[in-house]
Amino acid sequence: MRASIFHGQGDVRIEHVADPRIEQPTDAIVRITHACICGSDLWPYRGVNPWQPGWRLGHEFIGVVEETGAEVRTVKRGDRVLAPFSFSDGTCEFCLKGLQTSCLSGGGWGATNDGGQAEGIRVQQADGTLVAIPSGVQDDDPLLKNMTLLTDVMATGHHAAVAAQTRRGGTVAVIGDGAVGLCGVLAARRLGAERIIAVGHHPGRLELARRFGATDVVSGDDEQATAAVRELTAGGAESVMECVGNKSAMDMSFAVARIGGTVGFVGQPHGTDIVNIRRMFRDNVALRGGLAPVRAYISDLLPDVMAGTLDPSPVLDMTMDLDGVPEGYAAMSDRKALKVLVRI
Amino acid sequence: MRASIFHGQGDVRIEHVADPRIEQPTDAIVRITHACICGSDLWPYRGVNPWQPGWRLGHEFIGVVEETGAEVRTVKRGDRVLAPFSFSDGTCEFCLKGLQTSCLSGGGWGATNDGGQAEGIRVQQADGTLVAIPSGVQDDDPLLKNMTLLTDVMATGHHAAVAAQTRRGGTVAVIGDGAVGLCGVLAARRLGAERIIAVGHHPGRLELARRFGATDVVSGDDEQATAAVRELTAGGAESVMECVGNKSAMDMSFAVARIGGTVGFVGQPHGTDIVNIRRMFRDNVALRGGLAPVRAYISDLLPDVMAGTLDPSPVLDMTMDLDGVPEGYAAMSDRKALKVLVRI
Repeated sequence: MRASIFHGQGDVRIEHVADPRIEQPTDAIVRITHACICGSDLWPYRGVNPWQPGWRLGHEFIGVVEETGAEVRTVKRGDRVLAPFSFSDGTCEFCLKGLQTSCLSGGGWGATNDGGQAEGIRVQQADGTLVAIPSGVQDDDPLLKNMTLLTDVMATGHHAAVAAQTRRGGTVAVIGDGAVGLCGVLAARRLGAERIIAVGHHPGRLELARRFGATDVVSGDDEQATAAVRELTAGGAESVMECVGNKSAMDMSFAVARIGGTVGFVGQPHGTDIVNIRRMFRDNVALRGGLAPVRAYISDLLPDVMAGTLDPSPVLDMTMDLDGVPEGYAAMSDRKALKVLVRI
Repeated sequence: MRASIFHGQGDVRIEHVADPRIEQPTDAIVRITHACICGSDLWPYRGVNPWQPGWRLGHEFIGVVEETGAEVRTVKRGDRVLAPFSFSDGTCEFCLKGLQTSCLSGGGWGATNDGGQAEGIRVQQADGTLVAIPSGVQDDDPLLKNMTLLTDVMATGHHAAVAAQTRRGGTVAVIGDGAVGLCGVLAARRLGAERIIAVGHHPGRLELARRFGATDVVSGDDEQATAAVRELTAGGAESVMECVGNKSAMDMSFAVARIGGTVGFVGQPHGTDIVNIRRMFRDNVALRGGLAPVRAYISDLLPDVMAGTLDPSPVLDMTMDLDGVPEGYAAMSDRKALKVLVRI
């Protein structure tokens, strides 16, 4: 089959690799129909995260089950399925607590495991990992485009909103206008926030934030944006969603958090000394979040997607086939695309 | 009157200063009967926090009201009163939320304000700050020794337990065997934790931790202690109380936190890059806490002290008169005393 392979900074290629096969009785083989390129795929692409040539890429995919191992019970050949960006057994202490990203038998797609930007994938821990999509959804159903976002960014935005303790009627600042930040706006609206302030650098994305429910959008340099959010909120937002993962975004998050408020963070942390512990101490600002336990949230979010009341698909502003993946990486890295859908 | 004055690293003196007098209609003048030396007083004493010669010292005191400003309504001359380590108006947004340490009209004792290690003190925002002690308590009542600890360390230990989301039947690790850590053990027991693991370096203090309700005590170097807590808890404690305020204690707190757990921190942060944001991200470990809003907790804790069911007074293992304050600082700094009571 063909798969997306990392070769070095700025160098992604589609290459032929061995077809996936069942290796453990808990495995399933999935033929991938839709995948995405994630903002976090850009960290290795840009050389920020250490990554080895030859590693597989992609962790956002949906597809159809082709084969299952002897112990797989919850999905069968022909089922259309959704997978979170990591696999999990569904039975350990942390899976049972809804923290499947910390599953004791878990792991992530890509690198030395199969990746999601490929024609097929071996899915470890299939029972704990895969979620069957209600039957009746066909290959060309537009809902599938929407659902690809539940594999990561929509659920991650939701995690940011939950971690930030977004409350009905509350005020939220969303730092970052990437796909996760935009999904975070949708999530905050869905949770009933009354005031949602989106902070970013890109007019088009901030316009999308407005469509998604932001009541205010703020741009400018960090100092200007911070001042603007603090003025709009008369001193800071009780819930702040940090959706980037660098020091600048984290600094701004603490600067715009209201006394006693909460920063929910979901951006993979880059840089050192990025937490303003002195602000946290002085004003009892909490910091919560981390890797989104997507598997725990899919059951909440999928019905809304099926009902058409939750539609993050506008963040997918470019569509490629598998051969177009390298071009998709370049487009996202150059900010010519917000997020790329891969139709396989 | 006489008051405790900072003169430089290791140099505290008792000197004559002007008597306090009403400056604002919201002030009260309190004659101090009991005060304490706090572990946090040692930061300037040891030269770790910048501090100016001539600044007043002390923020833990109780006493008797001598005079009140024209607008003071809740206390009157002759009332025996308790004060938190900071003053607050009781009416601003943050006071009403129970975050009096972030009061918009608030501040702390000592430095350029009057200090608590003195014969008297001008109490700003008397209505929002002072709590009347039930009448019938006399100058020599042993309960007063106990109550001095509600002005800071007992309430701060309680805040650590609350911030760490200590739950009935839960497992807690308390990092630090100073007065706050020991009070944290009491607080965790009071909140119903089933397993309380105290971590420290001093056998006598850890013995006191056992008396206070610790089910296990752990000592040794950081690596040994971390391994011991992780073994005792089969992977980490769901609630961790960081009661020191340096990088070593913070590092250990994250290392012994269970996946999905919470670190409650109350130690004033010293050092840089002391938050393990990568552990927080990977395993959804939360960090909450900060300056303890003592004023909010006194109403919870005072009845238990009056009833005799909450008694942190064993942490006060040395008593001095006001002239003995310099000796008290030296004794605490040299770890010859855990905490010093000053009878004035």
